[in-house]
Amino acid sequence: MATQTSAPLNPTLSDHRQNLVIEAAWVLPIVPEGVILKDHAVAIRDDGTIASIFTIANPPAEFSGWDRLHLTEHVLLPGLINAHGHAAMSLLRGYADDLPLHTWLNDHIWPAEGKHVDPDFVSDGTTLAIAEMLSTGTTCMVDSYFFPDTVANTCMETGIRAQISLPVVQFPNAWAGTEAEHITKALRVFDQFKSDRHRDAGITMAFAPHAPYTVSDEAFQKILMYSEQLEIPIHLHLHETENEVLDAVRDNNQRPFARIAALGLLSPGLQTVHMTELVAEEMDQMAAAGVHVAHCPQSNLKLASGFCPVAELTQRGINVAIGTDSAASNNNLDMIEETRHAALLAKGVSRDATAVNAHQAIRMATLNGARMLGIEEQVGSLELGKRADVIAVELSHLNLQPVHDPVSQLVYAASGHQVSHTWVNGHLLYHENQFTTIDPARLQARVDRWREQLQS
Amino acid sequence: MATQTSAPLNPTLSDHRQNLVIEAAWVLPIVPEGVILKDHAVAIRDDGTIASIFTIANPPAEFSGWDRLHLTEHVLLPGLINAHGHAAMSLLRGYADDLPLHTWLNDHIWPAEGKHVDPDFVSDGTTLAIAEMLSTGTTCMVDSYFFPDTVANTCMETGIRAQISLPVVQFPNAWAGTEAEHITKALRVFDQFKSDRHRDAGITMAFAPHAPYTVSDEAFQKILMYSEQLEIPIHLHLHETENEVLDAVRDNNQRPFARIAALGLLSPGLQTVHMTELVAEEMDQMAAAGVHVAHCPQSNLKLASGFCPVAELTQRGINVAIGTDSAASNNNLDMIEETRHAALLAKGVSRDATAVNAHQAIRMATLNGARMLGIEEQVGSLELGKRADVIAVELSHLNLQPVHDPVSQLVYAASGHQVSHTWVNGHLLYHENQFTTIDPARLQARVDRWREQLQS
Repeated sequence: MATQTSAPLNPTLSDHRQNLVIEAAWVLPIVPEGVILKDHAVAIRDDGTIASIFTIANPPAEFSGWDRLHLTEHVLLPGLINAHGHAAMSLLRGYADDLPLHTWLNDHIWPAEGKHVDPDFVSDGTTLAIAEMLSTGTTCMVDSYFFPDTVANTCMETGIRAQISLPVVQFPNAWAGTEAEHITKALRVFDQFKSDRHRDAGITMAFAPHAPYTVSDEAFQKILMYSEQLEIPIHLHLHETENEVLDAVRDNNQRPFARIAALGLLSPGLQTVHMTELVAEEMDQMAAAGVHVAHCPQSNLKLASGFCPVAELTQRGINVAIGTDSAASNNNLDMIEETRHAALLAKGVSRDATAVNAHQAIRMATLNGARMLGIEEQVGSLELGKRADVIAVELSHLNLQPVHDPVSQLVYAASGHQVSHTWVNGHLLYHENQFTTIDPARLQARVDRWREQLQS
Repeated sequence: MATQTSAPLNPTLSDHRQNLVIEAAWVLPIVPEGVILKDHAVAIRDDGTIASIFTIANPPAEFSGWDRLHLTEHVLLPGLINAHGHAAMSLLRGYADDLPLHTWLNDHIWPAEGKHVDPDFVSDGTTLAIAEMLSTGTTCMVDSYFFPDTVANTCMETGIRAQISLPVVQFPNAWAGTEAEHITKALRVFDQFKSDRHRDAGITMAFAPHAPYTVSDEAFQKILMYSEQLEIPIHLHLHETENEVLDAVRDNNQRPFARIAALGLLSPGLQTVHMTELVAEEMDQMAAAGVHVAHCPQSNLKLASGFCPVAELTQRGINVAIGTDSAASNNNLDMIEETRHAALLAKGVSRDATAVNAHQAIRMATLNGARMLGIEEQVGSLELGKRADVIAVELSHLNLQPVHDPVSQLVYAASGHQVSHTWVNGHLLYHENQFTTIDPARLQARVDRWREQLQS
């Protein structure tokens, strides 16, 4: 099946922008660090930027004519950034569970993908994932999956910000055969989505060589060359399990990290995913090189992959962001829940209850994600002139009462289900159980069809 | 302040029982193990018992005149049993976080309790916790807190099933001074709530000596004697942290578990809570004696207490139930989320992705809890003649789609917020965001008052 060509921006998207003052009980700007602003407002200009943050009691005159939204029981914060995932795999949510990574991939996930994945699968599965993410406060997703042009178009249509990570892998699949073909197709997709129009809509790109055990040195070298030429990052599953490391040492007498380092990939452009097996020297090298980590706590637990040493990484100043991984190994894309897992697991693993406090955790889920993607000048915090990627979480539910500390409630008690509003780039994409760019009934019908096909 | 006397049953409670056939897309009876019934109905008789389970397509004639409830997108299962908590501490949700257990208790929680805890605090805080639990599918709670008579009355009024664990501790508090006074008062509360009327309403009792480091040998001996005489269990925090064990070895040259064993407490009547530090020999002793474990994964993580070896315990046949602990160390009481944590953490800690599968996890949260409490003949599964403690979870939300496997969705993707109906003892106590025995507005006003007092 031919891949889709770049579709026009959803024509209705621009209808969801306005000059708007959002008044909230609390504003959590992330920058400055550790600050929570009581009874403040965030003004969003109709060009999608943050125009001002001020106290509700003293509104500047220039905003007097703007529309106002009163969110009296809510905390406003930057949209959450899901630093790792495979959105289309939401169609495989609950398809196979309680299995180790190798069996799960080889005997269940890869065969199902081999049989079913095509642009329609990717479009429908990605839309399903985006619906879940927008409704639970994620405004930016990192995706790596087959048919990345379809993923990019789906993001453009629904309005979510995304890093489209262009997959390269040795084994043939519905999208491409050889590594060389993956790279050729990846470059073609890059050309298709590199324009200012796409960047303004929130689309950035990266190369996503799958993992050291599925990508050759030659391909890594080509990817590195192109990533430097095109100035785009590399997104790589690395040290996901102990077995990955042990197998590499047995077969090649070299840890995968050492191979990646020897290939010259360590840099601020490298986004490593999982990183459950690390020795101190490797962490020191990462810190020196500015390598980022996308930490996926629930996926690591569910697949019994190991524990990412988050406290040790952050102590070294290494930038750690948070990702859900796919709904096939999680099994939801609720970044509030994932952030809670990251905070709790970091304490448990480091045996230090002060590790990753509530403010640090929510920073990992916002600004650290933006830093990893190289878009921290645009998003990741509520600051003047940044793009208005903003969410509101309602804290009035009895299950979140009393509110002694809104940041604690957000990280340790809330659920993505309590997200009431999601703006991306100033567009209101979700509010009070309604989507502005997704038709849930049509989506449900498509998902039902895929469920039947996958079960047959 | 004087403790309250036993209040009459909520007069409106009996209005919420009826002869009712609940038709559901799926029924998860827990017994037989691993079974999921498609398009089945559960008939609840107006005496609060389960009258029948049958296929919707072939309803027995005797139920033809009964009221019917169609839950076409839902899974019906036994109510969740929260095996450990301190309900009233929900008023301290988010009051102090990101601190190690010792500092958290000594510098924050205990001083706040010392200043504020009285029967009103306990009544309001317990009602807040019960509202959260009923709305997220918990039908039975284990509680140990001061003013246990107030807790018991609050449970009777709201209709939740409960084990009221009567606290004994060396340090003086608002409820009692010496250990001896705790025991005297505990016996008085036992007499107050031991009648058939209370048992029929779902109230059972236990002794709750706080922990080895806060209870003397003499008190343990008395508690053991009374627990055998009165035939009630003992609920005990044990081996919560490595420090608890190290301190005891340093001071008394004996691990707390060995001391408890030497005191003769190991029996099927012993409910141990936390158990993060265990050697193989201790687990063997537990298995031989039939000791139960209430596992609190999120609390253990948040306080960096250590990891309970759940997979090793269950491999030995030790009964492991799941508890949230209090909302001050969790910070919610969502047992679906807690069950997910238990399943995921067991895999991570044992490095075995097949450990605690979805069916086993939900069994831990239901039947295993009932076994721990000695009420498995009454509740914990959907079986003919058992009490109708039943919940419905709606799986139609896009975030739970597609449903390849309803049990996987329940454990790995759902949230307590997707619970639509909660019956206890045949009484409908919660449905579609409405409580039948709790006034949310009145409760919110009380909680607001406590927030102000605690912050002042």
